[in-house]
Amino acid sequence: MLNVAELLDCVKKEERASLTEAESKILLSAYGIPVVEEAIVTEEDDAASQAQKIGFPVVLKGHGARLTHKTERGLVKVNLRSDFEVIQAYRQIKEAAGEDWEGCLIQPLIEGKREFAAGLVRDPQFGPTVMFGLGGVFTEALGDATFRIAPFSETQAEVMLDEIKSSKLLGAFRGEEKADRDALKQTLLGLARLGLEHPEIKEVDINPLIVTPDGKVKAVDALVVLDENADAPIGPALSEEEQEQWIQETRQALHRAFNAESVAVVGATKPNISGFAGMFGCMHLFGFKGRLYPINPKLDEIYGHKAYPNLTALPEKVDLVIVSVPAQVVPGVLRECVATGNKTIHIFTAGFKESGEEEGVRLQKEMKQIAVEGGLRVIGPNCMGFYVPNRRMLTWQKASKKSGPIALISQSGGNAQEITHYATGRYGIGFNKVVSYGNALTVESADFLDYLAGDDETEIITMYLEGLKNGRRFLKLAEETNKKKPILIYKGGLSETGAQAVSSHTGALAGGPKIWHSFFRQTGCVLVESVEELAEVAMAFHYLPETKGPRTAVLGYGGGAGVSVADNCAKLNLALPDFSEDLLGKLREIIPPAGTIIRNPIDAMIAYFDFDVMGKIFKLMAESDEIDNVLMSIPLDWLFNKEEGGGYIETLTRYVAEEGVRHLGCKPFIATWRQYMPSGKIRSWAPVMEKILLDAGIPVYEGMARGINAMAKVTAYYDFHAKNK
Amino acid sequence: MLNVAELLDCVKKEERASLTEAESKILLSAYGIPVVEEAIVTEEDDAASQAQKIGFPVVLKGHGARLTHKTERGLVKVNLRSDFEVIQAYRQIKEAAGEDWEGCLIQPLIEGKREFAAGLVRDPQFGPTVMFGLGGVFTEALGDATFRIAPFSETQAEVMLDEIKSSKLLGAFRGEEKADRDALKQTLLGLARLGLEHPEIKEVDINPLIVTPDGKVKAVDALVVLDENADAPIGPALSEEEQEQWIQETRQALHRAFNAESVAVVGATKPNISGFAGMFGCMHLFGFKGRLYPINPKLDEIYGHKAYPNLTALPEKVDLVIVSVPAQVVPGVLRECVATGNKTIHIFTAGFKESGEEEGVRLQKEMKQIAVEGGLRVIGPNCMGFYVPNRRMLTWQKASKKSGPIALISQSGGNAQEITHYATGRYGIGFNKVVSYGNALTVESADFLDYLAGDDETEIITMYLEGLKNGRRFLKLAEETNKKKPILIYKGGLSETGAQAVSSHTGALAGGPKIWHSFFRQTGCVLVESVEELAEVAMAFHYLPETKGPRTAVLGYGGGAGVSVADNCAKLNLALPDFSEDLLGKLREIIPPAGTIIRNPIDAMIAYFDFDVMGKIFKLMAESDEIDNVLMSIPLDWLFNKEEGGGYIETLTRYVAEEGVRHLGCKPFIATWRQYMPSGKIRSWAPVMEKILLDAGIPVYEGMARGINAMAKVTAYYDFHAKNK
Repeated sequence: MLNVAELLDCVKKEERASLTEAESKILLSAYGIPVVEEAIVTEEDDAASQAQKIGFPVVLKGHGARLTHKTERGLVKVNLRSDFEVIQAYRQIKEAAGEDWEGCLIQPLIEGKREFAAGLVRDPQFGPTVMFGLGGVFTEALGDATFRIAPFSETQAEVMLDEIKSSKLLGAFRGEEKADRDALKQTLLGLARLGLEHPEIKEVDINPLIVTPDGKVKAVDALVVLDENADAPIGPALSEEEQEQWIQETRQALHRAFNAESVAVVGATKPNISGFAGMFGCMHLFGFKGRLYPINPKLDEIYGHKAYPNLTALPEKVDLVIVSVPAQVVPGVLRECVATGNKTIHIFTAGFKESGEEEGVRLQKEMKQIAVEGGLRVIGPNCMGFYVPNRRMLTWQKASKKSGPIALISQSGGNAQEITHYATGRYGIGFNKVVSYGNALTVESADFLDYLAGDDETEIITMYLEGLKNGRRFLKLAEETNKKKPILIYKGGLSETGAQAVSSHTGALAGGPKIWHSFFRQTGCVLVESVEELAEVAMAFHYLPETKGPRTAVLGYGGGAGVSVADNCAKLNLALPDFSEDLLGKLREIIPPAGTIIRNPIDAMIAYFDFDVMGKIFKLMAESDEIDNVLMSIPLDWLFNKEEGGGYIETLTRYVAEEGVRHLGCKPFIATWRQYMPSGKIRSWAPVMEKILLDAGIPVYEGMARGINAMAKVTAYYDFHAKNK
Repeated sequence: MLNVAELLDCVKKEERASLTEAESKILLSAYGIPVVEEAIVTEEDDAASQAQKIGFPVVLKGHGARLTHKTERGLVKVNLRSDFEVIQAYRQIKEAAGEDWEGCLIQPLIEGKREFAAGLVRDPQFGPTVMFGLGGVFTEALGDATFRIAPFSETQAEVMLDEIKSSKLLGAFRGEEKADRDALKQTLLGLARLGLEHPEIKEVDINPLIVTPDGKVKAVDALVVLDENADAPIGPALSEEEQEQWIQETRQALHRAFNAESVAVVGATKPNISGFAGMFGCMHLFGFKGRLYPINPKLDEIYGHKAYPNLTALPEKVDLVIVSVPAQVVPGVLRECVATGNKTIHIFTAGFKESGEEEGVRLQKEMKQIAVEGGLRVIGPNCMGFYVPNRRMLTWQKASKKSGPIALISQSGGNAQEITHYATGRYGIGFNKVVSYGNALTVESADFLDYLAGDDETEIITMYLEGLKNGRRFLKLAEETNKKKPILIYKGGLSETGAQAVSSHTGALAGGPKIWHSFFRQTGCVLVESVEELAEVAMAFHYLPETKGPRTAVLGYGGGAGVSVADNCAKLNLALPDFSEDLLGKLREIIPPAGTIIRNPIDAMIAYFDFDVMGKIFKLMAESDEIDNVLMSIPLDWLFNKEEGGGYIETLTRYVAEEGVRHLGCKPFIATWRQYMPSGKIRSWAPVMEKILLDAGIPVYEGMARGINAMAKVTAYYDFHAKNK
């Protein structure tokens, strides 16, 4: 028998685009995929005697390099029960195939109600990607399939089996035994290996992959499609060593940029009419801690800084050049950067590929060439650039000066600003590094992720992402980094329509939503769906200890609001378990008025007005081994009415901050607040209350729904890592 | 052949729980459902000659009143191709069936890859409910099914066909013709009729319902299950006339309550320690416009009102009695109500069925009996009661005195307060009638809906619902009323876990989430998922004209935020179409700076600072026949920076209010605002801006996501009615 390399060589020599069914199965078999035994016969008598050997009933199919769509062409005859039927089928197939006939393929008839499909595709962003789903005639019509990007673990292969809607069919089903899960996992892992080892394989289809009544798995039909260019790199091919060196140098360039001692702004101006201070003004006003050089041949000084006519005139090579000049001038500036050895550049200017205009696309191509040849690391164009509070670096209007353990990588400048403003202004959590990088000329998402993975200041990485240039590198980095530092991603364009808007926005090719969802399932990265959610969930990761499980106790909700808590928990897979009789008994002792609802959620208004009760509830929850997490509600309206002026809100909050931490410090504990009387007076207590809780390290949210969401996302993160070690 | 009545009588006489397969098909056939032709044979030779008549291949099945699970018992033999095979199968079946054998059923083999299932179940809330879904062996495993409550229209039957995930199989599929949709619709409508006409039929299963290669539809297997008590009424059976009279009197009682001239409060007290004014205090403080009688034997007067010892002592029969006394005393009060002829009662007191405690359940039962026998209309117990601003009626702490065209029916008192506070306080929209009715002793959701349907003041009906007592009546009312007055329902307990919390909260049985989703699809009622959303969507219905379609233009978003707009529109089926070249050309003429994104969403910052541009954009959108709706964003931060103090926000808003209405009055137009710098100064402009827009009749939301959601819900409502006339 041929080995795999010989087989593929032979197909390539014949310049065929695909393997025959028989060849496909030989190839798959070499990768540990269970295929049906079969033989090629080129004589009638041979067919009959093979059939005898195999045992009736058998299946006969046409065989030949040019035979596709066999069913439609009448080249498949199933359930043949005798020599006579075999020979008759043989003749019919031979005639129907005509000149394309090279023989017949004979197989036993594999019977089984349960037909699955498995396959390999090459995603434009992520490369070889393995599919598993419901097979047979309904594959496309039902679209019940899941994907994983190769390589992936055995655990992930296992999860794929459970992830499809029809996964019930893999259990014991209507008198048939449960499927051989090992064989299915080996099939998926084999496909992944095949895709990785053979870049010339564009696609593999196994359909049906039958589960027989005794649970065995057999690939009954298979097709392997080749394409020499399927995995060709976009741009010049670099050797592995060259790539490693490029990455190494990018890392160093980013280190210099994030820790810049000297920055030049090409196109520095005084504030424009709309009030925007411009790149230079922003850096100056924020109080950049290093040497700042404005470059503008028409001015002598800006904000008291001596202006220079060009980069050549500068007294030193700078750590970062910021470019803010009209689009058509940018290539010239880049050439000057190359000439002066200023190799790390942020281009603010827009109007390139993202505009969709011919001239913009041409300019970006020109810039790319200059940058690649000159070894420039270009952040942008079409982006807002940097915000690094410790260095007082900022290329937009306003930001907090407080640093913190969170970093943000954003493909959109608007979102970079909104996320940081919201998170720092509302919740006081600090970012140490923020970068908006727009069209990603030579530095892209994966480069920033790579840098932040090794950055000691950064404990949580947040991102706003649209497309990727090198999905495989990004995936690998994300998988590894997310184990140590939670990665939160707000992914724009996960809907079909949204995906269009993405490609018109940054010119990056967005991956299919299905593949992206698999990315999240596979890496354990946390998917969020809005600017606000990104900040809210980051806050939870920042403050909460590791969650041990999904069982959550909720304090402070009854009636319709309690129903809504239950609905929200159920939607997000956060368990709201019934308390045991034992725990209920203890609660009954603590909470006096008969008739108060002490189920979960606990509706004990009394606790908010009697700290003894509240403290005992905290203690019970902390000690109970049937509760993993605690969520509580602070009802501003009730509390406000207790004392003239509403000062009781602060009293209660201080108690929760102190005793909550004392008792519940060991368990993930989130506070939420609600106010349904739209009174400005009541509302004015919210920031006071939030500050007290945040200072105590308790994440706090407006509305239980946000708190449940944050708790659910943190719980899912730790659960993923517990299961994918 | 037997007719249907005779057939069912015969089965009942034999005390059988189900019909045989053959009987089932006779019954279904009488209801226009296409069934396979078949015959019962009790002799071998007969079997063979019938097979000849039918034509090979045939199917043979066991026949008998006690034969179930035929496949598992080996009583089904398919694909019999000769006399010999038929006779062999006949003998095997006869032997396997043993004493249960009454004959064999012989059918032609119906071949077809496409197997569906249809059926009838009797939902505990909604009664006969028809199912359509994917059939064959995968029915349960894939769970691809949809439901409609009988009766439903042909249009709805049509929608069912398209609603299942596997609906693609109904089109031309792999060389097979498209399915006979008429036959499928007749099947579903026939099942509905069967369920309505025969309350003793508990369940019907047709599986498989095969679509043959030529598109024909055949019910190949069928089962009809009977249950004499399936549709028995809960509580005493009333004649139709009695029911009509009860409903009529309830309507009158509610009219008196909502327009009360005189109200007595049993258990009137001075304010309690927590600061709650109590039922009487609330009515008094809100300034009830009629005669208000406190009843408390221990007091002489309350708030200057003379107190009475009991109802008997009152100088008149009152329009409404409010009861706020300890639970165990309530039955006595109800007896006094009966004795004094005070027949409309709101019971505030809790601690009955909802408590889950034995004594509470017993008390409620006792109260129910008193109420039914005495003809009392009881709102509650365990509820907050009424809020009617025009009558200055209020049984909770605080509320707006402004009336409006919206009514609210809420099963939760907390939600009733939150919804009205939020809607009136934030958006200034008025409610004319609000009622919270808790455990619904003798007046329930359907009664309030019935009243509001005929109430001239009410244009939009909103609800917070958990369970229903009489789902069928509610459905019918909702279907009819929603055509004239949009009905918005916040349904608690749509998740499994949530459903548990519901039943523990009000003691009402919640319907399965699947059936509830069908309820919304069938009636066109608008489903919302939170207190805030209910108010927000109600506001959109209040202000917007009828929408003509989903094509929406969005003004004011680019970059990452634009991507998020596209994602949100896609999720909610609101179209964000590309503009035509013609429209783009016109926009290019209006919006000066080259490079500005004029696609949809339009990212034209200039328009916010140049009213000439803004006005022209409004005009273009108003005139364009490729745009149905317009959404705009008001970016507070940009506008705030334009002038010291932020006054430009007001200038711009006034322009939008005037010109927006002038140009866009004809088209649904929603404004949204965003603020990402968490500055209190900027935020303080939000209420000013909201008020200007609301006064001009433009609904306004914080954040584009809420605006998109409201627009999408309104659009879906009018679209439903256009399609279901």
